Amino acid sequence: MTFPKITLIGVGLLGGSVGLAAKQRGVAARVCGLVRREESIAECLAAGVVDEATLDIAEAVADADLIILCTPVGQMGELAAAVKPHLAADTIITDVGSVKASVVAAVEPVLPRFVGSHPLCGSEKAGVIHARGDLLEGAVCAVTPTEASDAATVETISNFWTALGSRVVNLTAADHDAVVARTSHLPHVLASALVNAVLASPRAGERDFLGTGFRDTTRLASGEAGMWRDIAMDNAAAIAMALEDLQTEIDRLKTALSEKDAAALEKFFAEGQIARDGWLAGREDL
Amino acid sequence: MTFPKITLIGVGLLGGSVGLAAKQRGVAARVCGLVRREESIAECLAAGVVDEATLDIAEAVADADLIILCTPVGQMGELAAAVKPHLAADTIITDVGSVKASVVAAVEPVLPRFVGSHPLCGSEKAGVIHARGDLLEGAVCAVTPTEASDAATVETISNFWTALGSRVVNLTAADHDAVVARTSHLPHVLASALVNAVLASPRAGERDFLGTGFRDTTRLASGEAGMWRDIAMDNAAAIAMALEDLQTEIDRLKTALSEKDAAALEKFFAEGQIARDGWLAGREDL
Repeated sequence: MTFPKITLIGVGLLGGSVGLAAKQRGVAARVCGLVRREESIAECLAAGVVDEATLDIAEAVADADLIILCTPVGQMGELAAAVKPHLAADTIITDVGSVKASVVAAVEPVLPRFVGSHPLCGSEKAGVIHARGDLLEGAVCAVTPTEASDAATVETISNFWTALGSRVVNLTAADHDAVVARTSHLPHVLASALVNAVLASPRAGERDFLGTGFRDTTRLASGEAGMWRDIAMDNAAAIAMALEDLQTEIDRLKTALSEKDAAALEKFFAEGQIARDGWLAGREDL
Repeated sequence: MTFPKITLIGVGLLGGSVGLAAKQRGVAARVCGLVRREESIAECLAAGVVDEATLDIAEAVADADLIILCTPVGQMGELAAAVKPHLAADTIITDVGSVKASVVAAVEPVLPRFVGSHPLCGSEKAGVIHARGDLLEGAVCAVTPTEASDAATVETISNFWTALGSRVVNLTAADHDAVVARTSHLPHVLASALVNAVLASPRAGERDFLGTGFRDTTRLASGEAGMWRDIAMDNAAAIAMALEDLQTEIDRLKTALSEKDAAALEKFFAEGQIARDGWLAGREDL
């Protein structure tokens, strides 16, 4: 499978990594990147993630066989409208957004040959400078067709992610959002809450006592705030539900602490230890 | 500074690492380990963390210049009573427990030459097999004297940890416990709560979506449940207070989500990003 021309709309960590992987694996004959700032053109070329970069949307979109929207999720609807006038009849479109229901709702009515994607391979590092050709290798990539999706388009987009080394999982946009609210967004918001609770008003001498445990538990809090604002806005209801699942566990812990219930505390920690170790034992990739 | 004989009461990850470091750095002429199981004797000797190991408390304690209690915090009081009859007049004693107020209250009345310590260099890996001679290097070590503590004893114990490469911080046992409730115990209980909330009743297909973010955020949940039960029992009030600080942040997030308040959400994430990045920037050791 070789696409004559793939266009990335937005070339950051993820877009850049997709471009690099497509070039390295021969999945694209030519990769074009649409960027917003003049200086980004040189950055993208220096990083080797595209063959050409432009500020001109008409030029970027023209003749593209596959367009991948790699901008923050809040901008996808607007972007679809901007892309539409320049689109060839058979161009197919996907995206890499971390939420899917809002993106699909915003883009599909404008661009019928769009099917949403979400490769789960982010990093708290942002920017094309951190792009890696192997970022998608072994990563799960969600593809979220609707009843309106064209079957051939779904297959081509799935094959594209597979060709970059990802493992494609098909599910609805709503199911995707409910799942990632628990598996990805909940750990992220918790990391931010923990940082805010501890570092915003540190006790005297407290920083001496922050070590690798705090560092690792809060790693996700270093993610880009604007991106996470958009994700939280778009997936607010599902994240709120995930927070209720967490609240149940926190309340269980509070009760055990206030009652000094050793058996309940041991059960709380033992369930976590066993569940995590069991999960990790089945994941040679982690 | 060379102690003719140091005795470790309990030889696991931390005790073993203390023994190994003391031998490697010439801080002890002889390291003796008291263990509970016959097979542990060979394990300790094979790991090279002691010069001799025994099941006999009288033999272990006799002639020791420094005794380090390395058992779970719930056993320290009992242990102090068992050690006392065999103690030479000038033996000094410390421990490595993760909580200090309960340990000091249990041990100091029995052993007046005891001063509490807490080297902050644990790991979720347990057992002497994981002992490392460099585990204490660069680690903060809390030393928690009381008004009753002998100044020379406090100094000797502080010098001991410094000689193993640790950075000694003096504070009261109560202050120590309040601080570690926020910096160490809060991240730990949160990791367990997150694992329990997500892995205890996973949605269909959800495991496909658990990756490195979930792995790192929950790393601490793989800690040994019995040890954490003891810590939670001994530091219940301070952990409950730390949980209230966290609850304030979670409630703030819940409100922002339910009101779909983009500015409040961005502020929540931005505060976390800035605070964590600022903290890490000052810590070349992490």
